[in-house]
Amino acid sequence: MFVVMRTGATDAEVNGVKGLILAEGLTPFENAGADRVVIAVVGEIGARRPQLKARLEATPGVATVTAISKPYKLVSREFHPEDTVIRVLDAVIGDGSLTVMAGPCSIESREQLLETVDFVAAHGATVIRGGAFKPRTSPYSFQGLGVEGLRYLAEARERTGLPVITEVMEPSQVDIVAEYADILQIGTRNMQNFSLLLACGRAGRPVMLKRGFGATIEEWLMAAEYIASAGNPSIVLCERGIRTFETYARNTLDLTAVPVVHHLTHLPVVVDPSHATGKRWLVKPLAIGGVAVGADGIMVEVHPRPDEALSDAEQQLDFPAFASMMDAVTAVHEHVRDLHGDLVRGANGGGANGGGANGGGPTGGA
Amino acid sequence: MFVVMRTGATDAEVNGVKGLILAEGLTPFENAGADRVVIAVVGEIGARRPQLKARLEATPGVATVTAISKPYKLVSREFHPEDTVIRVLDAVIGDGSLTVMAGPCSIESREQLLETVDFVAAHGATVIRGGAFKPRTSPYSFQGLGVEGLRYLAEARERTGLPVITEVMEPSQVDIVAEYADILQIGTRNMQNFSLLLACGRAGRPVMLKRGFGATIEEWLMAAEYIASAGNPSIVLCERGIRTFETYARNTLDLTAVPVVHHLTHLPVVVDPSHATGKRWLVKPLAIGGVAVGADGIMVEVHPRPDEALSDAEQQLDFPAFASMMDAVTAVHEHVRDLHGDLVRGANGGGANGGGANGGGPTGGA
Amino acid sequence: MFVVMRTGATDAEVNGVKGLILAEGLTPFENAGADRVVIAVVGEIGARRPQLKARLEATPGVATVTAISKPYKLVSREFHPEDTVIRVLDAVIGDGSLTVMAGPCSIESREQLLETVDFVAAHGATVIRGGAFKPRTSPYSFQGLGVEGLRYLAEARERTGLPVITEVMEPSQVDIVAEYADILQIGTRNMQNFSLLLACGRAGRPVMLKRGFGATIEEWLMAAEYIASAGNPSIVLCERGIRTFETYARNTLDLTAVPVVHHLTHLPVVVDPSHATGKRWLVKPLAIGGVAVGADGIMVEVHPRPDEALSDAEQQLDFPAFASMMDAVTAVHEHVRDLHGDLVRGANGGGANGGGANGGGPTGGA
Amino acid sequence: MFVVMRTGATDAEVNGVKGLILAEGLTPFENAGADRVVIAVVGEIGARRPQLKARLEATPGVATVTAISKPYKLVSREFHPEDTVIRVLDAVIGDGSLTVMAGPCSIESREQLLETVDFVAAHGATVIRGGAFKPRTSPYSFQGLGVEGLRYLAEARERTGLPVITEVMEPSQVDIVAEYADILQIGTRNMQNFSLLLACGRAGRPVMLKRGFGATIEEWLMAAEYIASAGNPSIVLCERGIRTFETYARNTLDLTAVPVVHHLTHLPVVVDPSHATGKRWLVKPLAIGGVAVGADGIMVEVHPRPDEALSDAEQQLDFPAFASMMDAVTAVHEHVRDLHGDLVRGANGGGANGGGANGGGPTGGA
Repeated sequence: MFVVMRTGATDAEVNGVKGLILAEGLTPFENAGADRVVIAVVGEIGARRPQLKARLEATPGVATVTAISKPYKLVSREFHPEDTVIRVLDAVIGDGSLTVMAGPCSIESREQLLETVDFVAAHGATVIRGGAFKPRTSPYSFQGLGVEGLRYLAEARERTGLPVITEVMEPSQVDIVAEYADILQIGTRNMQNFSLLLACGRAGRPVMLKRGFGATIEEWLMAAEYIASAGNPSIVLCERGIRTFETYARNTLDLTAVPVVHHLTHLPVVVDPSHATGKRWLVKPLAIGGVAVGADGIMVEVHPRPDEALSDAEQQLDFPAFASMMDAVTAVHEHVRDLHGDLVRGANGGGANGGGANGGGPTGGA
Repeated sequence: MFVVMRTGATDAEVNGVKGLILAEGLTPFENAGADRVVIAVVGEIGARRPQLKARLEATPGVATVTAISKPYKLVSREFHPEDTVIRVLDAVIGDGSLTVMAGPCSIESREQLLETVDFVAAHGATVIRGGAFKPRTSPYSFQGLGVEGLRYLAEARERTGLPVITEVMEPSQVDIVAEYADILQIGTRNMQNFSLLLACGRAGRPVMLKRGFGATIEEWLMAAEYIASAGNPSIVLCERGIRTFETYARNTLDLTAVPVVHHLTHLPVVVDPSHATGKRWLVKPLAIGGVAVGADGIMVEVHPRPDEALSDAEQQLDFPAFASMMDAVTAVHEHVRDLHGDLVRGANGGGANGGGANGGGPTGGA
Repeated sequence: MFVVMRTGATDAEVNGVKGLILAEGLTPFENAGADRVVIAVVGEIGARRPQLKARLEATPGVATVTAISKPYKLVSREFHPEDTVIRVLDAVIGDGSLTVMAGPCSIESREQLLETVDFVAAHGATVIRGGAFKPRTSPYSFQGLGVEGLRYLAEARERTGLPVITEVMEPSQVDIVAEYADILQIGTRNMQNFSLLLACGRAGRPVMLKRGFGATIEEWLMAAEYIASAGNPSIVLCERGIRTFETYARNTLDLTAVPVVHHLTHLPVVVDPSHATGKRWLVKPLAIGGVAVGADGIMVEVHPRPDEALSDAEQQLDFPAFASMMDAVTAVHEHVRDLHGDLVRGANGGGANGGGANGGGPTGGA
Repeated sequence: MFVVMRTGATDAEVNGVKGLILAEGLTPFENAGADRVVIAVVGEIGARRPQLKARLEATPGVATVTAISKPYKLVSREFHPEDTVIRVLDAVIGDGSLTVMAGPCSIESREQLLETVDFVAAHGATVIRGGAFKPRTSPYSFQGLGVEGLRYLAEARERTGLPVITEVMEPSQVDIVAEYADILQIGTRNMQNFSLLLACGRAGRPVMLKRGFGATIEEWLMAAEYIASAGNPSIVLCERGIRTFETYARNTLDLTAVPVVHHLTHLPVVVDPSHATGKRWLVKPLAIGGVAVGADGIMVEVHPRPDEALSDAEQQLDFPAFASMMDAVTAVHEHVRDLHGDLVRGANGGGANGGGANGGGPTGGA
């Protein structure tokens, strides 16, 4: 349920609505738009719905009370029409600029990480990635350097000034990872690890949520809703390929999901062509494709000597390939950033969506 | 790597081999078969392989040292040709008898649980199921009664004498769940929650591992390997449907996986037609089908009044439907228990597999 | 649209309704049930619907005129509640007996075919199968013996007295194949070859329609509707596996489809575990499974010396394996034939479905 | 098997090799590259391979005889390293220019078609599309205008000077369709209709082969091999989405397939975002994405008044949307045409692939 306040509603009126919601054992989430405030009512409403709606409508300052048509509430465009823009250190995600998260699959040593981050930072990366805790299909594969890896990441941040992102695999790791990392990553196999989603939602750090390789778009957004419902609105989605019958590449990168997600939610979305394809030579064309369909950025794996990598050797870019890819995606990004806004937003149905407060669309902006 | 000891090798010789393995920082797992001992060498062997193989071959009591052809080791039939049989209280899983795990999707109240368990226990259930911690796609759905639900489960066990199984969703819940439940269940969305797999592997309770709805059979067995590698050999697999393009039923129950799993591993496997189909009227025919292809049992959801259920109302059986299904699966089980052994085992390639120490096959047994 | 005639409506009244339908440029299809006649109105009705319904309702002998809720009409249970039973020579398909279609993948020579049919006929096969025109993924693979193969099939029929089934690949082949074969088979790759469906619909022979490996159940039934709309009500469906991400077996046999198809249509359905699995040792357990979920029969490939086969060598049974499988499926069939009727029919929603004219259900019968 | 002739081999030597191949009952296919001739040997070679290889190697003018590593031969890059460029009237497909096939899903009337083609021709379309024979899931849906539609297409060609493409559904239609159309289209449901593939291979017109929605890339290329083996090297591939578990869009457009196909074959490939998504507002972003990953062109459906369309109303673009999409894809195409060549070709493994005779890569060219 959404409570739309009147234009010019006072703080006291907004608080009155919130108080009524809290008194029902429900949680109010406020979105203060350019001209008016919207409050989402979250929790198990059940049979109370008609009476609660009537009481809210009769509360001072309330314009309308409406149902939300989607199962996800806080992450929907219905609740929050403006694009979410996330700022971490000097990086900005979701404002129409190109986010490039780059670094090794696994942090293997201090030298390997720093050599890589120096190169990618000098060639346009805006966020540093590197795995310290590694989810591996086999218990006998390299499981990552753990906290030692986190420390190297922190050193990488100091060296480059760029924020760092790394994966967290269980609720009890959230505190230690949040101590070192600027963005918490939830991996594809944990997309519906609900305890982890809630723990990350309470961690006070932006979260990047990878799509489960067996998950529908709706399930992905419901997983994001878990994070948002725990109080964290700073969520980046990451499309990394879904499992299909086609086996040439490791998974099938679902680039359709990018405009769909921009249409259904206000969250930024990046694509990960490294994990999707599992093949180095496919990373560049699909990074270009991802940016072209309107993604807010890409995540790619880079290693100084991919053939010696302890994980995902087949898909990591070497330095020249990363530089070549960056030239290409930067060029394409320049030419597509103004192409998508109207169409995606137009699909939201409103004639006014192309202008005014929502102006510019998902990849638009100043 | 497997070390096959000579027939009649002494304990001192076995210990000598284990000591050598431990001294390398690796872990030995012993399988004492009817006529000889096999020791699996688990861990990152890497470049040491040829030298280690030579040293082991030269160790007293060793017959042969061979590579394991599969990525999973401890759960493979190569390492452990005999079927694993799990005993919990008076229930036996994997010995050719029919395991029936039944109970409500969610424990909603003490009355609802006890009413259900009284009925299913009287009609042939061998294990009681009931969800206390519930993984839900939406954060706004009923999340289960938690520890209160666990207490009702314990009461159900005392009443019926049957072991109880319930889902555990995160590592920090393992201790409390293991305190009340006889078998720990890992759900489909957590199949590759590796921290949870390891925690369950150390819990001292049998574990039932549901197949991820987006997971291949090989990934499922690798997940079981995580549990086994943490020291827990008592694992039941559960096929509960995979995600395909077909949408009439919720998922596509992969009954082919049953003989495949019996062929590749020594672990028992049950099928869950309730979650696979999501439709009450499909539970009975697919329970019959599951038993007919050789499953060691079934898991089904039963509710006194399914239309009032707080979760999965569409798929839970009412009491008469459960009784009717039990009549059918019991009758079919009687006639199939001797049909599969030779063929599945025969596929392992050895002419002698149909008899001798391995005799009887996956669903056979004395 | 269905026109349900009054009990005791005269032939003149039935003809009056048909005349009215024909005069509108539409086609009437009659189903004469035990107590009353139903006439389906097929064609593009469009905007005429309300007026046409009113005129039909006012026609003598008409009880009610109702919409059909499914996109398929003639093959739906709504139109035709009784099971379709197909008689070909002495074989009967769909009456609760077990249909076993067996023979080589490809007819390679007269000797190979006759040696095989002698064996399978002596061991319980009820229909002889053998490919003369072979759909092959590669243009450079063996394409079948063509008309020469058809002649051998005819000889096999004379020898055994059993009807023969073989695949037809294009409309221009229908006449020649129908001259030799008793049942026309449409392969998985041609399930939506609409020209072929119509040509087979006009051929005056029963048709077996394999499910496309990428087709939903609804599309499969729509393809059957093409055949029925061309005037041929004698259709057998064949579930042969769908394409999923799981690669251990060639395809994923969708045994859920069997009760679903029995619920939605009146057509018999058989399962083909040979093509679904592509592995010889999986044929027996899945043949058992198919019969157990209520299939009207199975189709399996048998070859005197599978390792020398010119196609699908990995999946063809040798003679002892066929005999072993027959023992198993015959035993299981005896015990399941009475298990499914009530549940599947019960799902149709009507209290009377379990008895009366519809009695016995999909696998029931006298 | 490939026979690579020496640089400067004479016509007599080439003919000598061909004669030897023909005498074996096999078929020679010649590819005359910039500096030397390669001859593929096609047919069932079987056990003759070693002797045949030896005899060919000893034939005058032969440099080497090598195996082809892929199951497809004539369409592989191994046999034919240079990109195939197809010229039809004034249109050129595969030379690095942007092919735009546009027009209505179904030809509904002369007026509807001509109004549409006038608009799309004025806004950059290079080929006119329109369905005359329509493959429809339901036998009761509009099946197209047939030959009348073909006549309107011919009129559209005369009016615009652009070549026209339309679907052919069965072998017996090939002659009449080839009489009116410049390019024959084989639809997704007929991708493995092998009789149709061969008939189109003999028709003397370029063929566009849509990928089956349930087909792997390898099966798609094998289907193209059927056409090529019948003597027709002018084949355009069309990626139109595959069937997955994701249901938001109709299918999942597999943009990864574009660089993969450019890597494995020499054939041009276009993408069809209209059928892949089934949603009008997704056509533009995915058309952009298709061009960005290196497709040689796009195929889109356009209708003067989509809401009145007799088929696929939800996905056809109206005129302003087509114009907007054309602006976008034209702009993106300008910037990507030089980005892909090196990487895709580089993946072929040869250092020399980036230059020389093959120069420019899949979308490169003057």
